Amino acid sequence: MRPRPIVTLTTDFGAGSPYVAAMKGVLLEACREAVLVDIGHSVPAFDVRAAAFVLWAGSRSFPAGSVHLAVVDPGVGSARRAVAARFGESYFVGPDNGLFSLVADSVAEVVELARPADASPTFEGRDVFAPAAGRLAAGESLASLGTHCDPEVARLELGEVVLWVDAFGNLITSLRPPIGGLRIGSATITRSVRTYSEAERGALFYYIGSMGLIEIGLREARADALLGAGVGTPVTPV
Amino acid sequence: MRPRPIVTLTTDFGAGSPYVAAMKGVLLEACREAVLVDIGHSVPAFDVRAAAFVLWAGSRSFPAGSVHLAVVDPGVGSARRAVAARFGESYFVGPDNGLFSLVADSVAEVVELARPADASPTFEGRDVFAPAAGRLAAGESLASLGTHCDPEVARLELGEVVLWVDAFGNLITSLRPPIGGLRIGSATITRSVRTYSEAERGALFYYIGSMGLIEIGLREARADALLGAGVGTPVTPV
Amino acid sequence: MRPRPIVTLTTDFGAGSPYVAAMKGVLLEACREAVLVDIGHSVPAFDVRAAAFVLWAGSRSFPAGSVHLAVVDPGVGSARRAVAARFGESYFVGPDNGLFSLVADSVAEVVELARPADASPTFEGRDVFAPAAGRLAAGESLASLGTHCDPEVARLELGEVVLWVDAFGNLITSLRPPIGGLRIGSATITRSVRTYSEAERGALFYYIGSMGLIEIGLREARADALLGAGVGTPVTPV
Repeated sequence: MRPRPIVTLTTDFGAGSPYVAAMKGVLLEACREAVLVDIGHSVPAFDVRAAAFVLWAGSRSFPAGSVHLAVVDPGVGSARRAVAARFGESYFVGPDNGLFSLVADSVAEVVELARPADASPTFEGRDVFAPAAGRLAAGESLASLGTHCDPEVARLELGEVVLWVDAFGNLITSLRPPIGGLRIGSATITRSVRTYSEAERGALFYYIGSMGLIEIGLREARADALLGAGVGTPVTPV
Repeated sequence: MRPRPIVTLTTDFGAGSPYVAAMKGVLLEACREAVLVDIGHSVPAFDVRAAAFVLWAGSRSFPAGSVHLAVVDPGVGSARRAVAARFGESYFVGPDNGLFSLVADSVAEVVELARPADASPTFEGRDVFAPAAGRLAAGESLASLGTHCDPEVARLELGEVVLWVDAFGNLITSLRPPIGGLRIGSATITRSVRTYSEAERGALFYYIGSMGLIEIGLREARADALLGAGVGTPVTPV
Repeated sequence: MRPRPIVTLTTDFGAGSPYVAAMKGVLLEACREAVLVDIGHSVPAFDVRAAAFVLWAGSRSFPAGSVHLAVVDPGVGSARRAVAARFGESYFVGPDNGLFSLVADSVAEVVELARPADASPTFEGRDVFAPAAGRLAAGESLASLGTHCDPEVARLELGEVVLWVDAFGNLITSLRPPIGGLRIGSATITRSVRTYSEAERGALFYYIGSMGLIEIGLREARADALLGAGVGTPVTPV
């Protein structure tokens, strides 16, 4: 028996939005057996860079074959492609606007989705993307959803920045190890630790975070507040 | 094989409330096979009008036969009926206080729920409504849950107002097309567009939203902030 | 057929955190049949007392055999044990730092979890606790997950305080009935009611809440705001 298919959801619709539920209704209509998992709906409105991070960080522990539906789409109704793609062994469905920057690897298969005639021009999440994700979950092939097209998806230039601030005020940067230290604003941070409990109170430190990226922390306090930093703040390795 | 039953949940308990989880424990005790889907728990406390919108907007894409459990109940412990109802092909369970204003159509079957002797008077969501929704999900009939009663449910006079503000600051109104324009506060809006990308920056516009209602937007900016408007703000078609 | 296993999740990672989704990916990799239910992720950062309440309040209505995964862990990387435990007929997995204060009863079986060599030192939720919870859900025994150890788990001294404030501003205290009244700050409250609708407007009252604890309310208004009280505010029975 085929294992139950998994569909995750990532949007900027806001926690508690009925629009997320509307997408889930469509998904369950297409595939009642699907396991639906929210990655996050609190991405700042229209922030494709933050969404690209959340989608990557949230989706990478999922089993092969999972379908990841993501809708953060400042250009809804404009010319960006609506796509369904396979990167490695996972499927991704959403607008091709840079959302897939961090999950797209070199071997890809991408189809441009057909747009149903009666789709709402302001809610493609429900009318274009959720039906496609539901059909993938139900076992249909990528090819059945649209037309194979250029497998190069749009990629954001992420640069050297803070990608995310977690609930504890730790700053997740786009830097990868090894580094000898880093600068952020007027601060230079050269202490590195393996785990929080090795850190001194009150002193900023960096470490290799659980996603493999360099993070900045402050023991039992908020690094973001001390540094006045947030998503998009530049960082420089030293 | 019967498809897995769906139960959605809509409350004003707040995101992260353990009371929502308590209801889910009861639902799974009654029907382990149920697919549980949150519509939203961030409805403003006791705001039955906002909840009626969220329940309608969130539930309408679900498959026939779904059970929609909703608990927004300023009058818990007072005389309003506790009901389970079938409107069309969907089931709704909750207090009969106007919550079902937007989902109740003309053909209805309504039963008044029996109240277990040991139910907490302050948490009927867990002790009255979730058990009833769980029994419906498990395949029991409406009639088994209580006594058939007057199929007219309480209806709020919604009037001509803003029903909801989405995460992008768009205002969803109770107005239905066609209109020639609308007034809100001291503003008169006569530009209409089909999709956001047709709109000029900085100019308010209206459009037929994805739920079929008139919405007010502002491209790449928040209409609610510019207008100083929110849920309940009056609108007038012109 | 074994009923579908249930796994609940309680963390302080914040609503919309991709780290919660990462844990769910690991759980579904271990047990695709699991029903995943969020208890709450909005517990204040590092607040083990609030988390102990949320875990207890959210988990107690779940069917016997459920697995409750909880990660609120100011001491990640330090010496507190990582455990999986059976209290009564339910399973709990997480750091042994007091989180289980309210759910641990007298008959317990506790194992200390083995720590995989490649586990991230900053995300044991994904790398230590979720795999253990997933294996329990898949039907493995507690003994297979680690080494039986002292069944006494760490317990917080909760004292006589406000444990939680619900979305309506009601204060859930650690006091149990019967009491003749209570003091909080400079207020003494002696009115008791059975349900909100019996209360007078504008007057504070107490009642036996749905979790069996004494709660303080104010009809159609917020008791927390009137009293300037929150989680941790002391209360004294009179």
